[in-house]
Amino acid sequence: MMRYDQLIHEGPRQSSPSLLQLASVSATVFCAVFGIGYTFSGGLVENYATTRPVQTQPAALILPKAVRYAGVSQGPQVESREARTALHAAATGTVNRDSTLQRPKVDPKKTVLIGVAADSGCGKSTFMRRLTGIFGGGKPTPLGGGFGTGGWETNTLVSDKTTVMCLDDYHLNDRAGRKVTGLTALDQRENNFDLMFEQMSSLKRGETIAKPIYNHVNGTLDTPEEIAPASIMIIEGLHPLLDDRVAGLLDFSIYLDISDRVKFAWKIQRDMAERGWALEDIKKDIEKRKPDFDKYVAPQRAKADMVIEVLPSRLAPPKDETAPLEYLRVRLIQKTTTKHFDPVYLIEKGSSVTWKPCGDNLQCEYPGLQLAYYTEEYMGHPAEVLEMDGVIHNLKEGLYVEKFLHNTGAKEFGELTQELLKGQNSPGGDNGTGFMQTLAALKIREIYERATGEKA
Amino acid sequence: MMRYDQLIHEGPRQSSPSLLQLASVSATVFCAVFGIGYTFSGGLVENYATTRPVQTQPAALILPKAVRYAGVSQGPQVESREARTALHAAATGTVNRDSTLQRPKVDPKKTVLIGVAADSGCGKSTFMRRLTGIFGGGKPTPLGGGFGTGGWETNTLVSDKTTVMCLDDYHLNDRAGRKVTGLTALDQRENNFDLMFEQMSSLKRGETIAKPIYNHVNGTLDTPEEIAPASIMIIEGLHPLLDDRVAGLLDFSIYLDISDRVKFAWKIQRDMAERGWALEDIKKDIEKRKPDFDKYVAPQRAKADMVIEVLPSRLAPPKDETAPLEYLRVRLIQKTTTKHFDPVYLIEKGSSVTWKPCGDNLQCEYPGLQLAYYTEEYMGHPAEVLEMDGVIHNLKEGLYVEKFLHNTGAKEFGELTQELLKGQNSPGGDNGTGFMQTLAALKIREIYERATGEKA
Repeated sequence: MMRYDQLIHEGPRQSSPSLLQLASVSATVFCAVFGIGYTFSGGLVENYATTRPVQTQPAALILPKAVRYAGVSQGPQVESREARTALHAAATGTVNRDSTLQRPKVDPKKTVLIGVAADSGCGKSTFMRRLTGIFGGGKPTPLGGGFGTGGWETNTLVSDKTTVMCLDDYHLNDRAGRKVTGLTALDQRENNFDLMFEQMSSLKRGETIAKPIYNHVNGTLDTPEEIAPASIMIIEGLHPLLDDRVAGLLDFSIYLDISDRVKFAWKIQRDMAERGWALEDIKKDIEKRKPDFDKYVAPQRAKADMVIEVLPSRLAPPKDETAPLEYLRVRLIQKTTTKHFDPVYLIEKGSSVTWKPCGDNLQCEYPGLQLAYYTEEYMGHPAEVLEMDGVIHNLKEGLYVEKFLHNTGAKEFGELTQELLKGQNSPGGDNGTGFMQTLAALKIREIYERATGEKA
Repeated sequence: MMRYDQLIHEGPRQSSPSLLQLASVSATVFCAVFGIGYTFSGGLVENYATTRPVQTQPAALILPKAVRYAGVSQGPQVESREARTALHAAATGTVNRDSTLQRPKVDPKKTVLIGVAADSGCGKSTFMRRLTGIFGGGKPTPLGGGFGTGGWETNTLVSDKTTVMCLDDYHLNDRAGRKVTGLTALDQRENNFDLMFEQMSSLKRGETIAKPIYNHVNGTLDTPEEIAPASIMIIEGLHPLLDDRVAGLLDFSIYLDISDRVKFAWKIQRDMAERGWALEDIKKDIEKRKPDFDKYVAPQRAKADMVIEVLPSRLAPPKDETAPLEYLRVRLIQKTTTKHFDPVYLIEKGSSVTWKPCGDNLQCEYPGLQLAYYTEEYMGHPAEVLEMDGVIHNLKEGLYVEKFLHNTGAKEFGELTQELLKGQNSPGGDNGTGFMQTLAALKIREIYERATGEKA
């Protein structure tokens, strides 16, 4: 039987992979990359690990299979899949393995599984960088990668303590297959929740899995890759909460809710400005996706422990319905009944506050900054909401805001501001998206520590 | 020469005159009594001092006279005045004197003069009770009074440390006289600012004055009354700030600004419900007063150090334009540049905050409570505004609110709430009018202490 502690170092690696390197990786995480106006080309690509493409499958490895659970609606798996994709290889015991990863074995009781739901192009990759960045001391190492240099296309992001998996890898059919079924990737029936549940259960039991890979570039299902359990495992994609069995495995879940107006603006920014699309085409494209999105993705908001809702600014609203959105209003909706989780609040728990920090003590540039905090019933659940509109221009403002926030998950005063500063140049680094994502990252660290009793 | 320390006790007095007694007095302070739906009939009237109606005028006493200062516009003083009013008597050296008042002599350097501007019927009497109530240990004793029992009608309210004078006493002509001039009492020309300035200057120098009395019941100018300097002297009425010389004597000034909608509602409440007027008559009556009010009274807002603005609630707005106003929104507009005065603020000085204390930690009844704080440019001056909408139902809420307020002028935490409780059953005791008036009272005490170095 294969020993997982005997993985081989292969290829040169950066001694200190940075945010910049992570950013390079994110350029390949297509399920989460658009809409941010922020991509790096792969100047560091040659540093990624190459792997032996075909390797014998050890008996303990959980391989994808076409199990069907009672009561689960799953669509037809079309012929093309078997023929075209590497899942076929997986079924025959083939798997890609990152020989460079030397992760210490993880006690299954000391792990958490976090779900992040969002549409594609909603800034998940940026969010994931913020999340993994919180778990300090890590050298974030992409698992696999090395596209075009003998490695494989991967959607998975690995650092010392965290592994982020993209749920697009559980698409039931590849792009060609979906043309046969006539269903979108948003459709429940086009996703293999049986396998997703089985593999997530395995990871939580401390078992290594052979996860399928959906190749976003060519729409194929590639040779599976080996994923070992990590302290903080994150699954991000369209449906981490749709299947109740998978949702039941999660220790915490977040839904990134980009409002239609913001999605529209981001799509205009990308598809009109960068790809020369007409406005009508963009509208049609959005409308086409909307029914399945509303049916299969949006309802997960009701199940999420936390929703980050991105809306047009009220402080500096857009001029008209197609104007670019220079400023955003972001709501952090926090379910109050979640285990190991105390909502972040502003000034006074349980009351309603609106606060513009700009004034006598703090000079802000246009459009300034407004925070709010209040309770509300969110999709049938009691929730506490922290809201931010406008921008934070500098460190001083960050500290000033931090002073009035409680339960941030920061280990000392100023840590939130330090983390904001780290992500200053990332998309949304000065607005509510960066702010709330950073808070979410701190809270996830807190949940990890409370749930496992470990220090992160 | 008469000795003022030899004033005679006359008639029985209550050993501990209470708010209730003050309230009885207020029923005679017509210049400030309507619109509150709150009047006491004079069950205690027989306890008020009676006086010798005619007494020789000592040489040192400053008597009203018809001085005209250069550059001051003053209207004609019609014949009727000389014939009908007691100012005539004053001119001949007659004055009413409260033989019961044993006020210790006051060091002129240890006094403050406060101006309170407002239209008639704007709750000034309630405000005055709150103000005088703050100066603890006092036995609020009305100066004079005893209407119908041998005393005189007075608008003046006296307690241990405070004397409140009504500026209607400086009307130039009586009601009959105004019929001759054709001017309203709101008109600058119908008020004797020369005398007002002269007498206020005298009080500030430590001199006793013989102040005229305007009788609101029959519209006559009665025999003047003797007023001795007090630690805290308050002049309240239509024009404490209109004449720059008088305004220049004030240590602090407040304008009670009742918005038109609120005035209308209060007038409907009184004149329709209690006097059977038609709605049209009420509207006409308001319109008739409006031009002179806007010309002579309203502009004083720009000069006031503090404006208490009373508006319809936004939390629970009235159903239509004639509906009664069950709930109010009250703004405490505080000029930031006033000597001895630091504005009250909510949570964080100089920023903008809106706060609904009701929520998890505090259950409020409908319509709840909302506080706000922000800076604004008010009539050309930088100001900090504290705002309250809705009601405070109980002590707990008061304390909860007090916890987040700073610079209240309270000497210890809880004092604001105690004062609110004292006025609980007074008009506006549970809403922003009572709240802001109580804060204003605490701030006036603070100004007195800072300006004089004395403990109040």
